[in-house]
Amino acid sequence: MNGDNEEYNALTRVLNAYYLYEDYARKELLSPRRLKWKSLTQEEQSLLPWFPEYLQVLEHCIKLNGEFTRNLATTVANDWGASSDPSQWAQCGYEDYDKVKYVFKQMLREWSEDGHEERDVSFNRIFQYLETKYPNVVERQHVKILIPGSGLGRLNFELVKRGFWCQGNEFSYHMLLASNFLLNHSYTRNHYSIFPLIHNFSNQLNRSLQTRPIFIPDLHNQTELINLQTEFPSIPVGELMSIASGSFTDLYGPDDLSISDHYSKDQNASEFRLQNANQFDIVITHFFMDTASNVIEYLKTLNHTIKQGGEWINFGPLLWHFEDAEDVVEIIKQDGTKVPTPVKGLELTNQDFLELAQNWFEFKHHEKQIEVGYSSDPKGLGGWKYKCDYWIATKK
Amino acid sequence: MNGDNEEYNALTRVLNAYYLYEDYARKELLSPRRLKWKSLTQEEQSLLPWFPEYLQVLEHCIKLNGEFTRNLATTVANDWGASSDPSQWAQCGYEDYDKVKYVFKQMLREWSEDGHEERDVSFNRIFQYLETKYPNVVERQHVKILIPGSGLGRLNFELVKRGFWCQGNEFSYHMLLASNFLLNHSYTRNHYSIFPLIHNFSNQLNRSLQTRPIFIPDLHNQTELINLQTEFPSIPVGELMSIASGSFTDLYGPDDLSISDHYSKDQNASEFRLQNANQFDIVITHFFMDTASNVIEYLKTLNHTIKQGGEWINFGPLLWHFEDAEDVVEIIKQDGTKVPTPVKGLELTNQDFLELAQNWFEFKHHEKQIEVGYSSDPKGLGGWKYKCDYWIATKK
Repeated sequence: MNGDNEEYNALTRVLNAYYLYEDYARKELLSPRRLKWKSLTQEEQSLLPWFPEYLQVLEHCIKLNGEFTRNLATTVANDWGASSDPSQWAQCGYEDYDKVKYVFKQMLREWSEDGHEERDVSFNRIFQYLETKYPNVVERQHVKILIPGSGLGRLNFELVKRGFWCQGNEFSYHMLLASNFLLNHSYTRNHYSIFPLIHNFSNQLNRSLQTRPIFIPDLHNQTELINLQTEFPSIPVGELMSIASGSFTDLYGPDDLSISDHYSKDQNASEFRLQNANQFDIVITHFFMDTASNVIEYLKTLNHTIKQGGEWINFGPLLWHFEDAEDVVEIIKQDGTKVPTPVKGLELTNQDFLELAQNWFEFKHHEKQIEVGYSSDPKGLGGWKYKCDYWIATKK
Repeated sequence: MNGDNEEYNALTRVLNAYYLYEDYARKELLSPRRLKWKSLTQEEQSLLPWFPEYLQVLEHCIKLNGEFTRNLATTVANDWGASSDPSQWAQCGYEDYDKVKYVFKQMLREWSEDGHEERDVSFNRIFQYLETKYPNVVERQHVKILIPGSGLGRLNFELVKRGFWCQGNEFSYHMLLASNFLLNHSYTRNHYSIFPLIHNFSNQLNRSLQTRPIFIPDLHNQTELINLQTEFPSIPVGELMSIASGSFTDLYGPDDLSISDHYSKDQNASEFRLQNANQFDIVITHFFMDTASNVIEYLKTLNHTIKQGGEWINFGPLLWHFEDAEDVVEIIKQDGTKVPTPVKGLELTNQDFLELAQNWFEFKHHEKQIEVGYSSDPKGLGGWKYKCDYWIATKK
């Protein structure tokens, strides 16, 4: 990666957020608590005799989290062609640290035993359908699956493990770097312990649970792939899995979208799009559709990249990610006119979204209001529960 | 109310937020959606033919919400001794509008049929206990109950309706003005229709549900009190209900807390505190304890205001309200020293909180992890579920 300075800055800024996480966490978690403790009267302190030791435990967890994130940053910097010297990286902002915290939770969800219950609700439906539809394991290498918004790559990996050719697609460097690290730099099951729950002080049952380690990954992907290869020597296991970095519309969309942050006329993107037209047997949108600023573009992109007769599998809620965004950005329409558009403003209801989707897809299976959480602590005392839709739809 | 300029400004600023809500909602909800619509291509617009009419429906709901909040503001200004001329009121900020939105949701929870299911989980436990403990309706006027964080006063009212003497206590003007309005200016059941759900574009099943009216109040309090009076003429019904405006620690705490935003050495407050020492038979903390910045002060205040042998009933989660607050404020200790203290920093886990409480209270009944929502739309496609504790504890 060179030449494209903006991209390089975006990448190294995220590397820096991982690298500097420990400082951030000390400031965010420890400093106010130390000051709070100091501000208490002696009598108040005597009522919480465990508090100083608790701060030490928190500090220990932050240190270990920091070792993990520095290891992640310096390791993947190399993989991504960035300087190995953190002092050369772009400065990061507060929102980057927030995203690092978010990735810690995502690791719990995607790659730990603690995330199992949440994953099973959607994953099992998808696996059961695809394994039944394609019972011959050796033949699955010819089934091309795409997963936009693939996050830390667990769903992607699980399908590859079952013999499918599966491409992930992810826009966020925070996710891309972490999935790279977990997939390529874990040398055993439960290689790493992280402490994602220290960032939550609410809804905790007790301190031991808040400061407990979460072991990741809960399976070792290389071992699993070797097992597949051993059992089915004719499967080109090494070629089944890939992750494409970029926006879904930019990499897989039709050539007539409005130019925006998520869609360009860049030569590379245009060629990639052309290659991907009518390519996929299956596209799986898993907690993804509500990340759209303009969901019509997502639907057109699905339609463009799925083969004739191919299928769209969806599982997720409609928690529109940009609902509270205040920004207005400029898009360039096909005729060259520049138009201001708010990032928010097209948050459809479930019914309107379904009707819109039927312009391109025919629904063949549909389950509604499946209750499930996302990245919640299974041992915590509260969490958001979504009522998700699950469907399989055929391209018209 | 005169003389105390700061208080007057705080009050009229909130009045203004209610008064100007319609403008805010137009800017927040309509403007970006109109601009978004304009930015779509003709083809995209043709895929969403219902959109322009939808904006009209939203505008209509905003107008009706605006009529309601202006009526609220001008009506209660008079009750609170503020100028009847809105141009004389203090300017409000963005966060005040956010709180108005929050009060709309709170109205759904406390005073509508749609909030019934959520209320029943906690209210029914409390009513059953108190009705069994005090079976003689006429005698209940001598049972003094306090509800800190009484919000819009529904729990308070329900206990009065059952014959108990019950004082609510609330710190937020947003809540106080709205509860005043609902309790004193509703002339029939379902007098008002509001549209609280238009502020949510995520997790909506369809547009009709998002733009549906919520009717409040779901009972007419005056009628209910007249019924009580008719059945039990010896109950001084008019004297049973009150709401004290101010912070819990300031109005009911011991005289040795650190001086802060929530605790003063003000003459009036000191006298009120003195009157309230060892006064209450029952204090009910209902979704309240986690609003503390220093929960030890809340516990000391409970201990101070509950009678010897009196009881503390608690229902709620530990979603600490100040967990994400960044501010550091100055408190003045008993010896006069000034100390900086972060607003956040003492967010105890469930177990630590229970242990701390046992310094003053003996638990006689305890149910754990009761799953329930708070201010959620029962017809929505998602919501936070708390695992709440419910207990009855006796003052040691």
